[in-house]
Amino acid sequence: MTNTQGKIITCKAAVAWGPQEPLVIQDICVDPPQKMEVRVKILYSSICHTDLGALNGVNEAERAFPRILGHEAVGVVESTGEGVKDVKEGDYVIPIFNGECGECRVCKQEESNLCERYHVDPMKRVMVSDGGTRFSTTTTKDGDSSKSQPIYHFLNTSTFTEYTVLDSACVVKIDPNAPLKHMSLLSCGVSTGVGAAWNIAKVKEGTTTAVFGLGSVGLAVAEGSRARGASRIIGVDANPSKFEIGKLMGVTDFINPKDLTKPTHKMIQEITGGGVDYSFECTGNVDVLREAFLSTRTGWGSTVLVGIYPTPRTLPLHPMELFEGRTITGSVFGGFKPKSQLPTFAQQCMKGVVKLEPFITNELPFEKINDAFQLLRDGKSLRCLLQISKFLKK
Amino acid sequence: MTNTQGKIITCKAAVAWGPQEPLVIQDICVDPPQKMEVRVKILYSSICHTDLGALNGVNEAERAFPRILGHEAVGVVESTGEGVKDVKEGDYVIPIFNGECGECRVCKQEESNLCERYHVDPMKRVMVSDGGTRFSTTTTKDGDSSKSQPIYHFLNTSTFTEYTVLDSACVVKIDPNAPLKHMSLLSCGVSTGVGAAWNIAKVKEGTTTAVFGLGSVGLAVAEGSRARGASRIIGVDANPSKFEIGKLMGVTDFINPKDLTKPTHKMIQEITGGGVDYSFECTGNVDVLREAFLSTRTGWGSTVLVGIYPTPRTLPLHPMELFEGRTITGSVFGGFKPKSQLPTFAQQCMKGVVKLEPFITNELPFEKINDAFQLLRDGKSLRCLLQISKFLKK
Ligand SMILES: [Zn+2]
Ligand SMILES: [Zn+2]
Ligand SMILES: [Zn+2]
Ligand SMILES: [Zn+2]
Repeated sequence: MTNTQGKIITCKAAVAWGPQEPLVIQDICVDPPQKMEVRVKILYSSICHTDLGALNGVNEAERAFPRILGHEAVGVVESTGEGVKDVKEGDYVIPIFNGECGECRVCKQEESNLCERYHVDPMKRVMVSDGGTRFSTTTTKDGDSSKSQPIYHFLNTSTFTEYTVLDSACVVKIDPNAPLKHMSLLSCGVSTGVGAAWNIAKVKEGTTTAVFGLGSVGLAVAEGSRARGASRIIGVDANPSKFEIGKLMGVTDFINPKDLTKPTHKMIQEITGGGVDYSFECTGNVDVLREAFLSTRTGWGSTVLVGIYPTPRTLPLHPMELFEGRTITGSVFGGFKPKSQLPTFAQQCMKGVVKLEPFITNELPFEKINDAFQLLRDGKSLRCLLQISKFLKK
Repeated sequence: MTNTQGKIITCKAAVAWGPQEPLVIQDICVDPPQKMEVRVKILYSSICHTDLGALNGVNEAERAFPRILGHEAVGVVESTGEGVKDVKEGDYVIPIFNGECGECRVCKQEESNLCERYHVDPMKRVMVSDGGTRFSTTTTKDGDSSKSQPIYHFLNTSTFTEYTVLDSACVVKIDPNAPLKHMSLLSCGVSTGVGAAWNIAKVKEGTTTAVFGLGSVGLAVAEGSRARGASRIIGVDANPSKFEIGKLMGVTDFINPKDLTKPTHKMIQEITGGGVDYSFECTGNVDVLREAFLSTRTGWGSTVLVGIYPTPRTLPLHPMELFEGRTITGSVFGGFKPKSQLPTFAQQCMKGVVKLEPFITNELPFEKINDAFQLLRDGKSLRCLLQISKFLKK
């Protein structure tokens, strides 16, 4: 038993105090886990575009400050609250923003991973059990130590802190022999992309795919398609520096829309003789979405939305364009049910079915978190891994 | 061998001379079938909204006059052109607007019924082999017998005539013991609706469906859902007279949007505890399409577009509305491959798996075809069956 169990832990966290302000690394207090909650020591955390979007305050309704961002990580269980059965102190775990309670109507069937209680919710900022937070400041922002204030949670996770508290539905135990740094990637980006190819499009051997946007998620779609035996994987991105790394993830053809004198979908239809079997939209741009849709072939072409669309614009598609048998669908977390399916996926990654190493392009200490954000803003990193806590692996 | 083989046949046809003009029953000349074509004596034909749309000239680009409309029918082969192997003189057949050549890339795979050569094409008005028509007038419209003019074909079929010529890819042989009158329904409406439930949505036993628009196609969706064991089939229509007949096709709940003080999808979400598994949009109205989409439950709800949308408006759906795992897709002819799959479907109808009788609400002689159109305009018939030729069944 840890000597911190049941006690408030004071530790370092990177706190977001306002839109577009640099994160402040400061001491915070982390309460013990309540019933069905887990307190986790975060070892590594990576940064995803969703963290950047929340820090930027893109969506006003979703803003909440002060807040601890971060949702891709790997850690070790420090202590568990009443009733938690599936993880215990010392277990290696990854936090998941889209949880699985195992008991609701959705968790009990096979077709969806949108748990009715713990599905992803960008509006959520407090714990579900009591509507409170488990984080608080030790002082005010101005250093007044006589007052503390609550710090909001983020996406069921909040990983930019040495200790965090999560609902046990949002904690997945992993093999203690897994390469821990890589496991952080399974919390969001890689699982989302690989899952979109495996669980949503269900890419078959010998088929063709087009991936619009070669960030981490798009490259994970490519890697997932490669692992499933796609014969041709067309990567589309306006940044030619993505092309080299794309080759490592199975991308066979590159299209830079800026180099074309015709729409991208026309080019893809030409080189594939009518269109690809599957397209994936990973940029969050609705005009790109239209290109992705029209890049698929009539009859059975399927387009999977993987991006987040911060626009009031509706789908720029005419209903008759669906008439010829094309399908369009969306997905959250690549359709993976985290507790049921991620441990197996982690094993597959350990066996090399899906390669994780190329996704980690940078590593920085926790203190450099604002530099890590800048790398992502500049399109210079896929995933920058932050070492949050020093630790000795058992 | 018929004594008409190889000769021009003069017979009665209902000719459309201009937008919204009544059809004119007059003598026409029907050329012999050319290579891979079939000349068919039409026994019965029914009228579908697509005929009405073409007669109204809704879509200017698709207008072509004079023209012989009609695409739902049953007939008997009078003679065949060179190379036709799968039907012969005397065979009972149904014409299909969405053909199956059996040889193109699409026909050789299983996932789509959009034959590259003979898929439905509302712009097409001539035969593919020589770009000509097989129909011509015996006189001009004003009765000048010294001049004749070509009459255009319609949707690969043209069935409002005692004899028609079709590509053999658009002719499906049926069991000579089938009830002929009912088989006409398989040419379009009933196959489109039942197929949308069976082949596109793949309705499973115990699931819930909502059908928007209870015309023939919508009722066929309901009947197809009933045959597949759907536990609840919600029919939505602003015409309460559709409700009684809907009960015959398995509709369990009726919603008249005019009776509601809330949007239809809210009502459906309430009565189903979160939404239906499948919804079908059969009205061709994009606002109704939005209701149909939102009526499905998140996670796995699937919306199938069955209507024709004569509007420049695009889909009134936000991409994030797809994010929660809903799917939207379209279909042509219910996904049925006509030559490969319709004979089996016809057998299933003969066995009572799907009931056809209730769809025929009216019967009229060929001469009353303009009255039959009026019944459809007034929403007073599902299908009005016209007896085109007098015949003696073998
Ligand atoms: Zn993420
Ligand atoms: Zn659940
Ligand atoms: Zn074909
Ligand atoms: Zn029709």
